[in-house]
Amino acid sequence: MELWFLGTSAGMPISGRNVTSVALRMPQNRGTFWMFDCGEGTQHQLLRTSFKLSRLEKLFITHLHGDHVFGLPGLLSSRSSLGGTEPLDLHGPQGLREFMETSFRISGTHLNYPLQIHEIVEGKVFEDEAFSVEAAKLDHRIESFGYRIAESPRAGALNTALLADMGVPSGPLYGKLKSGEDVSLEDGRIIRSSDVIGNPLPGRVIVVLGDTKPCASAIQLARGADLLVHEATFSHDLAIKADDYTHSTALQAAETAQAAGAKRLLITHFSSRYKPEDLSGLEAEARSAFPYTDAAIELRPYEIPLN
Amino acid sequence: MELWFLGTSAGMPISGRNVTSVALRMPQNRGTFWMFDCGEGTQHQLLRTSFKLSRLEKLFITHLHGDHVFGLPGLLSSRSSLGGTEPLDLHGPQGLREFMETSFRISGTHLNYPLQIHEIVEGKVFEDEAFSVEAAKLDHRIESFGYRIAESPRAGALNTALLADMGVPSGPLYGKLKSGEDVSLEDGRIIRSSDVIGNPLPGRVIVVLGDTKPCASAIQLARGADLLVHEATFSHDLAIKADDYTHSTALQAAETAQAAGAKRLLITHFSSRYKPEDLSGLEAEARSAFPYTDAAIELRPYEIPLN
Repeated sequence: MELWFLGTSAGMPISGRNVTSVALRMPQNRGTFWMFDCGEGTQHQLLRTSFKLSRLEKLFITHLHGDHVFGLPGLLSSRSSLGGTEPLDLHGPQGLREFMETSFRISGTHLNYPLQIHEIVEGKVFEDEAFSVEAAKLDHRIESFGYRIAESPRAGALNTALLADMGVPSGPLYGKLKSGEDVSLEDGRIIRSSDVIGNPLPGRVIVVLGDTKPCASAIQLARGADLLVHEATFSHDLAIKADDYTHSTALQAAETAQAAGAKRLLITHFSSRYKPEDLSGLEAEARSAFPYTDAAIELRPYEIPLN
Repeated sequence: MELWFLGTSAGMPISGRNVTSVALRMPQNRGTFWMFDCGEGTQHQLLRTSFKLSRLEKLFITHLHGDHVFGLPGLLSSRSSLGGTEPLDLHGPQGLREFMETSFRISGTHLNYPLQIHEIVEGKVFEDEAFSVEAAKLDHRIESFGYRIAESPRAGALNTALLADMGVPSGPLYGKLKSGEDVSLEDGRIIRSSDVIGNPLPGRVIVVLGDTKPCASAIQLARGADLLVHEATFSHDLAIKADDYTHSTALQAAETAQAAGAKRLLITHFSSRYKPEDLSGLEAEARSAFPYTDAAIELRPYEIPLN
């Protein structure tokens, strides 16, 4: 899995930084991906990557401020023009449906795929065998959600040393045991899969928060996350301004990551006052509270390794 | 006056070409400009020019297809964030108001300037001392307008040779005569301004058409234009497809320019099937019917000289 920032600028684009969107390359290795937020120009940014819009499966919107949603009508239209025919699930706060339906009706847009719009409340918003997605409300000027993407645990490793000791020949039997099947040997012994497979390995957890000031629900949603994406609109010398606008400072993002026991923090959503060369200052500020922080850079992959 | 293409791609952006928008630098030399259409990413393109969004005075929308309007909510928001406080007039077809009001309401957007939305019908949509703008309906799948921007005539040139023959001393008297005032000389002669000023010089006419198939109203609106901007979505080998989608071919755009007696044609709105290196073919096709044609290139000025 890889996370790609398609935009890291708050409010409006500036030269070299676009407004918010994040793409998450999914592990099934078919080029499928999910997205979080879709500011204006997101489809243009995708043109600079290897993502194919037709492979976009799900889109999660944190909140309805323009810099997070104004790219939706164009991106969803282009997905159709580019041959996307698979259904697309679009999750987000109440109001999303009206925005999309009005935009499409007024512009005479017709999609060649089913668009399923889910106006969410807190709690589980998606679950299948491989992943679950949970949403929690944050603390922002308008309703804003964070999303916790939790991969299902993987089967533990096969204890090949033990199997060798037991005289089990490697080959097809190993595959059966690995897949959870008990096997009978020619000498009559029965080997139970559960005896030779280690504990399940925890799946990866990625948490992408919408705009927010520091709040308990952000910490709760991000608990133990392998990767936390948190806004850092301002540096901490502007903490009063951040509070006024219900945003976070870089330091506050780091404090949330620390309190949540996250493994890694990527800060994003930088005020347009910060030029690219200013971001190292925000990064240093956050690292003072949480060392495993990077200021997100657009259009490069952040890999999320297996646990 | 200069025309800048901010986007020349039909339907969706491709690498190196954005969706439709045109900026027209106005002659008052205060950095003010007007715009025609506003596809997604138009504000991003403006960042690559010297135009300042706060100096945008008027915006004219030809039709409501997404590739012509989905950049509006973001651009108008950013104009506010960037300090624009002067009123802005937004002209376009019916439905424009609902799209803007819904987008702003759902996204919680508040502008720091008065936005005046004018849903237009055919005829004169704007007039002041310097310019008039006339709209005409074209022939497209949805209601689509063309705009004729006509500069008011300028005063004719002062006949300085005649004045010298008459023994009128150069200096302040010339200024008075030039401004239309009659003057008395010391020897008692009265010089009438109208006797020493040439005929008024015609103002410039720029015609920007929305998407359309060939139609009489396009020719009528473009009559005698100094500069005609016409879509050329397809090359003429796809004339049937162009007709099906109510678009024009490059040849048809040229035929309209020829029939209208325009002085210069800029073709734009090229299907995404045409890569940048293919545009010379469309240009050549158009030049076979109207030699004064160029395929528009983004982000470079096309000057409109005084008559």
